[in-house]
Amino acid sequence: MSPGAGTTRDRILERGLDLVSQVGLSGLTLGVLADDVSMSKSGLFAHFRSKEAVQLALLEHMAATAERVVVAPAMRRPSGLSRITTLVDLWLGWTQRAGLRGGCPVAAALFELDDIDSCVRAEVMRMESRWRTLLSTLAREAVETGELEPDLDVDQFVWELCGIYLSHHASSRFLRDPDAARRAALAFQSLLHRSGARGGAARTAPSRPGPR
Amino acid sequence: MSPGAGTTRDRILERGLDLVSQVGLSGLTLGVLADDVSMSKSGLFAHFRSKEAVQLALLEHMAATAERVVVAPAMRRPSGLSRITTLVDLWLGWTQRAGLRGGCPVAAALFELDDIDSCVRAEVMRMESRWRTLLSTLAREAVETGELEPDLDVDQFVWELCGIYLSHHASSRFLRDPDAARRAALAFQSLLHRSGARGGAARTAPSRPGPR
Repeated sequence: MSPGAGTTRDRILERGLDLVSQVGLSGLTLGVLADDVSMSKSGLFAHFRSKEAVQLALLEHMAATAERVVVAPAMRRPSGLSRITTLVDLWLGWTQRAGLRGGCPVAAALFELDDIDSCVRAEVMRMESRWRTLLSTLAREAVETGELEPDLDVDQFVWELCGIYLSHHASSRFLRDPDAARRAALAFQSLLHRSGARGGAARTAPSRPGPR
Repeated sequence: MSPGAGTTRDRILERGLDLVSQVGLSGLTLGVLADDVSMSKSGLFAHFRSKEAVQLALLEHMAATAERVVVAPAMRRPSGLSRITTLVDLWLGWTQRAGLRGGCPVAAALFELDDIDSCVRAEVMRMESRWRTLLSTLAREAVETGELEPDLDVDQFVWELCGIYLSHHASSRFLRDPDAARRAALAFQSLLHRSGARGGAARTAPSRPGPR
């Protein structure tokens, strides 16, 4: 692929991710995306052969974006409580930090695609499973450093943490509740506290007053 | 409206709610709904003047269904812990109990419509606010009976409870995790326990082994 074509593809992905964050994977139409990047639909088809191909490429682009904005900064922290609390702090409301106007496309897809079997659903499943595996790994590291209790039910910890993320997403983005970040921080502190964290939990107090 | 027309309207709403539970409010097209009820699109338009009118009628029908399947049985319990635990027990996975093939349309709409201003979003907002007010009222009743602690942060309790509901929805319906009901019950027990419940929490242990 020529550098010029690479640039166009990048631009389609940038604009497409922003659109998908607002309307969801199913809500994205090739017509709207083509208009948004000032291309014809046939021009768009030269880069992506189908709507599914666009959706899969956007998911890949989303994963790379989240890696840069959420995961990489957390992984620079020492393993243990500090790393997982940094990750959670960056994860909540990450799409705004990534410059997107909408919410997390994967969180939306968990509700949007639950009853629709497709290759896109399968890819979201792989991404969500990888994400939960990462959360489990970081929680286990905090067990290993002795900052979380040795008999922690890591799967339950991750399950409840995902509930905090989803509740924060719904309350900040849908309900537009100015208290969303504070409520999420309180819930996460409580989860850490009952998982054996002492002191370290304090750093998860809201660092941003905004709702997202 | 003649009784015959009423019956047709009811049938459209029944089928439409089942479709919306699977594809979401935005995913529903009038063409698919018309096909599903074996009508022409113009025949469907005789009952509903616009897609928004169908969506609003389906939300109203959903609220009536949830009232019958979830709220009414809970309200027959004495006020206090027993009522709110019954409500939560019936709320988790309520769409299956209502005979729908998909998930909760309002839960999906919290992610689907967060960035799309419309009369449908406004109605979902009203429904979600009413629902959270009901949860708050039932939690306060349990405070009044002395079964939850007197200084309970009711808003935080409801916020975390909604996180349990959303995590259960995602894990049971999207991830199809057979442990979803057990994880939700553990999370709710933990929430009740740290809200001052003693003993009463035990009845929220999983009464159904199924994932939904």
